Amino acid sequence: MTILKKVAEQQIVVPLGFRFAAGTAGIKASGSPDMAFAEAESTPPSATAARGGSPARTGATAAAMFTTNRVTAAPLKVGKRHLVKSGGRVRAVVVNSGNANCATGAEGIRAAERVCRAVANEIGCKVEEVFPASTGVIGVPLPVDKLVRAIPTMVQARGNDGDSAARFARAIMTTDTRMKTASVRLRIGQRDVTLLGVAKGAGMIHPRLATMLVYLFTDAEASAKELQEALRGAVATTFNRISVDGDTSTNDTVLLLASGASGARLKDGRKEFAAALGSVCESLALQIIADAEGAKHVVNLTIEKARSGRDAEQVARAIANSPLVKTAWAGADPNWGRVLAAVGYSGVEIDADKVDIWFGPHRMCKRGMRAKFKENKVHAYLQDGVIDVRVALNQGKQAATFWTCDLTAEYVHINADYTT
Amino acid sequence: MTILKKVAEQQIVVPLGFRFAAGTAGIKASGSPDMAFAEAESTPPSATAARGGSPARTGATAAAMFTTNRVTAAPLKVGKRHLVKSGGRVRAVVVNSGNANCATGAEGIRAAERVCRAVANEIGCKVEEVFPASTGVIGVPLPVDKLVRAIPTMVQARGNDGDSAARFARAIMTTDTRMKTASVRLRIGQRDVTLLGVAKGAGMIHPRLATMLVYLFTDAEASAKELQEALRGAVATTFNRISVDGDTSTNDTVLLLASGASGARLKDGRKEFAAALGSVCESLALQIIADAEGAKHVVNLTIEKARSGRDAEQVARAIANSPLVKTAWAGADPNWGRVLAAVGYSGVEIDADKVDIWFGPHRMCKRGMRAKFKENKVHAYLQDGVIDVRVALNQGKQAATFWTCDLTAEYVHINADYTT
Repeated sequence: MTILKKVAEQQIVVPLGFRFAAGTAGIKASGSPDMAFAEAESTPPSATAARGGSPARTGATAAAMFTTNRVTAAPLKVGKRHLVKSGGRVRAVVVNSGNANCATGAEGIRAAERVCRAVANEIGCKVEEVFPASTGVIGVPLPVDKLVRAIPTMVQARGNDGDSAARFARAIMTTDTRMKTASVRLRIGQRDVTLLGVAKGAGMIHPRLATMLVYLFTDAEASAKELQEALRGAVATTFNRISVDGDTSTNDTVLLLASGASGARLKDGRKEFAAALGSVCESLALQIIADAEGAKHVVNLTIEKARSGRDAEQVARAIANSPLVKTAWAGADPNWGRVLAAVGYSGVEIDADKVDIWFGPHRMCKRGMRAKFKENKVHAYLQDGVIDVRVALNQGKQAATFWTCDLTAEYVHINADYTT
Repeated sequence: MTILKKVAEQQIVVPLGFRFAAGTAGIKASGSPDMAFAEAESTPPSATAARGGSPARTGATAAAMFTTNRVTAAPLKVGKRHLVKSGGRVRAVVVNSGNANCATGAEGIRAAERVCRAVANEIGCKVEEVFPASTGVIGVPLPVDKLVRAIPTMVQARGNDGDSAARFARAIMTTDTRMKTASVRLRIGQRDVTLLGVAKGAGMIHPRLATMLVYLFTDAEASAKELQEALRGAVATTFNRISVDGDTSTNDTVLLLASGASGARLKDGRKEFAAALGSVCESLALQIIADAEGAKHVVNLTIEKARSGRDAEQVARAIANSPLVKTAWAGADPNWGRVLAAVGYSGVEIDADKVDIWFGPHRMCKRGMRAKFKENKVHAYLQDGVIDVRVALNQGKQAATFWTCDLTAEYVHINADYTT
């Protein structure tokens, strides 16, 4: 039940130095907000800077990770280029939902640049200090005029309160049914530091070394290099350990911004910051799985006693992406044989006669064979919203945790009629 | 439309030297036949043997291929051992459906051996000349007493006519809705040779170097080595090029038996035999896809202009196993963007800006971008029972063909409640 508890922790605490807003460009047929904006404020040094007051700030330092899909959307190409040109500094983030601006060629790149320029003009910064993103259908030209027209109103509405951040979180949603946020406070030295994460994603979720749209904001002070190191560590065991459908998106992006406005330096509390970042990322990853398209069950998958962590992860991925295993979960069917079959074809050199499988407290498979269990009791357990599935390979000492969900008829309905 | 034509070619021609039967052991709750038996007859030499008449025959020479899943069912272990012990000779095949005899440990091995012994006693051959197979649910002990009791009646009913072979084909079915058979006749030298194939399979279909239960019978005369070579060639481009759900079974088996009763030697017509075997295997592979669980569309996938055949196949597999692509096909949704995304995450070093995609006659994507097409016309085309999807990587000269199907809500319903 730890998952549900974590998923419930969705309170929003806004770190110092950031402002948020949402806008409506008219991309979504529903008329819901489809643009989001976040700003790292630029402030002159305070009068007390020399005696430890706030120094001058021009935006936030940034670290980012992107999809490993070889097809990447235009905003990812533009965003990468901007981060290089700005030396890892970001003044503003601009996102649209409802259109991925992917497979849109040179025109798509120009469209993303135009949106960034409009934002830069509005807040008075360099174009390379604006970091763009898009999410939605692939292969449809971005209606850039609509976006540009909506920018001034959106930017003027920005605020540094929780409601503004919530509007940002809702505006980046596509098939998501719930906004996804997580925040923690920590102490570094004598100072309070806040970390806020916002994510979207419910389908095309199988991040590899990257993930869906995730924005992480902190008021700690850190170099781009320090942030990148912290981000890589957190992503590896959170966003890279979830799968809805095994489809890796073309637009996955995680961005971590540090305003430095708290005055606390990351390097003075590296461990504490890593733990805080890990917990925010884990919460967002779980929120994505809990909101997976059509899903009725969240599955907490643990592979243990593997020869290596890599082996454990590979076995977990095979189970998590098996349509037969996922449909059995949808029907609360105690079909451990399909789990064993997926372990067998995972590509890892397992020994079938050593494998143990548990569904919650029920041991289903002992040394590769059916264990003694009561079918009706297991069926009742599997009707729970959150299921623990544990597989022991009994070959070594390494383990991996992975989160996934079931495959329901509802998933098919949601995805059988998306563009048309 | 070539696929439908091929799929329709299901006539049964029985090669010389084989007899078939089905039986009912009572494994299936429906009461349908759940056992099948095929015999390679043993005959004394004819009086004219010295002048070119039939020589003595003791069963058939055999070649077999098995699943690459590291979890393998008991009958596969027993079958492999029997082929080694008999020097690649088979007198009888015995199959049960409704129970996979997999993950059943040493008891499962003993059960498979007992079934083989009962058949051997009945027809008077060595136990290692009997080749067993099972298909159905994983992890439930085989009701071996029921099977053994049903054997005498089944064996006595055997016949060398088409109806007997059809009974064999129907008795090995599980979730299949149609029996799957294909046969061809060819000439080798002055003699007629017949090749008959029988298959089952509708789910857990993603064969890798093997396939579901497939039995191939010929009256050509061939060594086990010649058969193995011919079989490997045919399987690579047929059963290893289909996928229903990406799940590789624990029980996949292909068996090729040659009775030699035609008097024609395979080595006198190697090319002709390879072509005939290829066409029978292709027909059976297509019949499996056409009967895939819940499927409404058969998809003929062609990947061309790849750097290597291996690259082309890897891209095809990524597309064929993408739930998002498959659900779009279910909805006749012209969502070529999902196909492009799957090409991108296939792991092959593709260049996104070079990719072309066609749905039938409609060019959907040109050099990585949306082509000009009429949405309603493509939607109408995608409502066809058989869809051609063609992807040109424009990087080389190699190609691969792959057959798959859509993912429907019906697939989920079929698989969400299988064991319980």
